[in-house]
Amino acid sequence: MATNNKNYPYRLLTPGPVPLHPDVQKILAEPMIHHRTPQFERTLKNVNEKLKDVFSTRQPVFMHTSTGTGAMESAIVNTLSPGDEVLVVVSGKFGERWAEMTKRFGLTVTPLMVEWGHAVDPAAIEKHLTAHPKTRAVFTQVCETSTATVHPIREIARVVKKHDSTLLIVDAITAVGAMVIEMDDWGLDVVIGGSQKAFMLPTGLSFIALSEKAWSFSESARLPKFYWDLRAEKKSLEKGETHFSAAVSLIRALEVSLELLTGPDKMRTLRRIEKLAKATRAIAEALGLRVYSQAPSASVTALATPLEIDSQKLREHIEKEFNLTLMGGQDKLKGKILRIGHLGYITDDDMMATVEILYHALRDFRSPTLPENALMAALGVMRHELATV
Amino acid sequence: MATNNKNYPYRLLTPGPVPLHPDVQKILAEPMIHHRTPQFERTLKNVNEKLKDVFSTRQPVFMHTSTGTGAMESAIVNTLSPGDEVLVVVSGKFGERWAEMTKRFGLTVTPLMVEWGHAVDPAAIEKHLTAHPKTRAVFTQVCETSTATVHPIREIARVVKKHDSTLLIVDAITAVGAMVIEMDDWGLDVVIGGSQKAFMLPTGLSFIALSEKAWSFSESARLPKFYWDLRAEKKSLEKGETHFSAAVSLIRALEVSLELLTGPDKMRTLRRIEKLAKATRAIAEALGLRVYSQAPSASVTALATPLEIDSQKLREHIEKEFNLTLMGGQDKLKGKILRIGHLGYITDDDMMATVEILYHALRDFRSPTLPENALMAALGVMRHELATV
Repeated sequence: MATNNKNYPYRLLTPGPVPLHPDVQKILAEPMIHHRTPQFERTLKNVNEKLKDVFSTRQPVFMHTSTGTGAMESAIVNTLSPGDEVLVVVSGKFGERWAEMTKRFGLTVTPLMVEWGHAVDPAAIEKHLTAHPKTRAVFTQVCETSTATVHPIREIARVVKKHDSTLLIVDAITAVGAMVIEMDDWGLDVVIGGSQKAFMLPTGLSFIALSEKAWSFSESARLPKFYWDLRAEKKSLEKGETHFSAAVSLIRALEVSLELLTGPDKMRTLRRIEKLAKATRAIAEALGLRVYSQAPSASVTALATPLEIDSQKLREHIEKEFNLTLMGGQDKLKGKILRIGHLGYITDDDMMATVEILYHALRDFRSPTLPENALMAALGVMRHELATV
Repeated sequence: MATNNKNYPYRLLTPGPVPLHPDVQKILAEPMIHHRTPQFERTLKNVNEKLKDVFSTRQPVFMHTSTGTGAMESAIVNTLSPGDEVLVVVSGKFGERWAEMTKRFGLTVTPLMVEWGHAVDPAAIEKHLTAHPKTRAVFTQVCETSTATVHPIREIARVVKKHDSTLLIVDAITAVGAMVIEMDDWGLDVVIGGSQKAFMLPTGLSFIALSEKAWSFSESARLPKFYWDLRAEKKSLEKGETHFSAAVSLIRALEVSLELLTGPDKMRTLRRIEKLAKATRAIAEALGLRVYSQAPSASVTALATPLEIDSQKLREHIEKEFNLTLMGGQDKLKGKILRIGHLGYITDDDMMATVEILYHALRDFRSPTLPENALMAALGVMRHELATV
C-alpha cells in the first residue's frame, strides 16, 4: 500500500450529501438574518418561483425543515387516511421505506416487488390498478438510490393518470434537479426532493409539491398532522412566509444553487450530470467492474465488484487511504457494489482522481481481473468522455 | 428622520434566530463531508456527550432535522395515544401551539389559561392533577417566548413528579442552554430545544430528551410515527449513527458552539445571558418603556411601548432606518411590546447600539414621555450593567 491519504484532498462522490458549490459555502458563512425581514421575504419569493421551474409545475413547491424522509411522511399524511389501499413499488431500500412508512400510518399496503437493479414494468401497475380500483395511491421512487436504478416515471404516470381516484406519489429525492421531471405535463401528483442531492446544499431542507388532484385528496385526508400540514403552509406562503421558523441559511444558499438549476443553466447542469454518469459507466470495463443496474440512473452509478472483492472493505480502504468517500451496497448488495454519485459540485479533476484511486485500491486488493495497463486505459476513457460535448 | 441604515451594520436581537458565533460561521462554510465517515462519527459522539451536559441528563439527547415545532410533535407522538387526557399551560402563543397540536393528534385537552405575562401557579396544576388523576401529561413552556415570561419549572416538576402516570413535557426551546435546566434532578420527563436559540446555530436542528418514565410511556404510545420515531433513533445512536441522513453542517457547527455551553464556559455563558436581560430591563425606565412581564425571562425581554406608540410600526421603523431586527408582539400584544433577544453572539457594542437606536427611533415617533437627556441616561445604565461582573 504505497499510498497515504495526506496526499489526497478530501473528495465526496456519493448519492448525497454532495460537494457544495463554492458560492453556496460562502453564503452559508454569512451572518444570520431574521426570517421575518423584507430581505428574507424577497429570497423566499425568488426561491419559490425557481423551485417551480425545477419541478416544472405551476403548483407551489413547499420546503420542510427536514431530511427527505420528512417530506415522504408529509406526502402520506397530507393526502391519505387510515385504511386507504395503496400500491408500493419495492425495488430496493427506499421502496422498502415507502412500504414501512405507509404501514406505520395504518394504510393497507400491497408491495409490488421488483427485482433489485431492474426498473418496474408500468404494465404491472396497470394490472394492479385495474384489479383493485379502490387503490388510493401508487408510491414509487424515480431513482431507487440503493440500486442506482431509474424507473420509467413518465410511463407510470400515464398509467396512474387514467384512474381518477388514484394518486401517483413520487420520491424524486435523487431525481428532481438531476434529470428532467415534468410534474404537470406528465401528471405526477406528489413530488418530493431533498436539499443534499441535486440542490447542492447541506442536508436539512426537503421539498414537496402537490398536483390539483393531490390537493383535492388533502381535503379529506384524515391522518393527524401539524408539522407537515401543507394546507397551513399554503396559507402562509400566500402571505409570503413560511409557516414555522425558516431554515434561513439553507434557503439563502438555495437561492444561489437554484441559479444553476433553472433558466439558461438548467440543461447544462442536467447534461453535466448525465455525462458524469455515462463516463463512470464507461470506465467500468477497463477496471474489471460491471455496471450493476439494468436501468442505470443519472444521479448515481452502482459498479459491481469482482466476486473475490468485498466492496464494503474496498470502500473503507478507499476512504482511509485515499480520502475519497464512495458508498457501498446495503442489505443483499452489501459487499457487492460501490456506488458513485454524480450530483453536486464535481470537477473533472474529481473524476480523474476517482479513476486513479479506484485503480490503486483494486490493485491493493490484488484484483486478478485488473491488467497492468488498466489505469492508462481507464484514464483515457474518462478523459475522452469528459471532453465529449 | 436624520438616520440612514447604511450607517448601521446589521444587528439581530430577537428570541431566535440569533447572531452566529464567528467560529460557527467559519465551520458552516467548510466543504461537505459524509455522515457515514469516522470523522463525522467522532463529531456525533462528542456532540451527544456535550448535549447531555447542557440538558443535565444521563439520557441520550436526540437531534431531529427540523425546527423546534418538529420536536414538539415528536414529544407528543412518542409518548401518547389518541384520547389521552392532557393538561396544557396556555399563557401565550406557544402555549396555544401545544394546545392546538395536542388536539390535532386526538388527545383530550384541558387548557390551563394563565394571564399573558404571568407565570403559571404550580398549585393550579396540582389541583387539576388531583381532580383528574387520569391525566397522562402536563405540557408547558419553560419560557413563553411570546410574552418573555419564565415559568417556575422546578416547582411544576415537583408537583407532577408525585403522579406516576403523568409526564411533564417541557418546551424549553428558548430556555435550554440559556438558563440552568436540571432535567434529571428536577424530574422533567421530556425536554425540547432548538438550534437557533441558545445553541447559536442557524435554524434546522431540534433536540429532545426523554426521562426513563417517558421511555416507559413510549412503549405503549400508539400515535403513528416514522420520522419522529425515537425508539428507532435510539437503536441507531447505540451504533453511533443518526437514523436518517444527518444535518452534517449544523451538527459540526454544534460541536463548536457546545464548547461555550458546557464545561468551564457553561456558567459564564449563562451569566452573560442573564446580564444582558438585566441590563435591558434596567434601561426601560430611562427610555420611557416598561418591562411587560411579571416574571421576566433571561432569554428575551418584552418592553411595553407607551400607549401612543404602535410597537409594530416602531419595530418596522427600527429595521428600515437602523438595520436592527427586533420582534414585536403577537395577537393581543400586537403593537404593544418590543421583544429583544439575549441569545447568541451578542457583543457589548450590540447592546450600546440598541440603546442608541431605541432612543432615536422613539424620538422619531415623537414620544412625549422621552426627555432630552434620556439617551445619556440609558447609555449610562447600559454601560454600568455591562461592566458589572
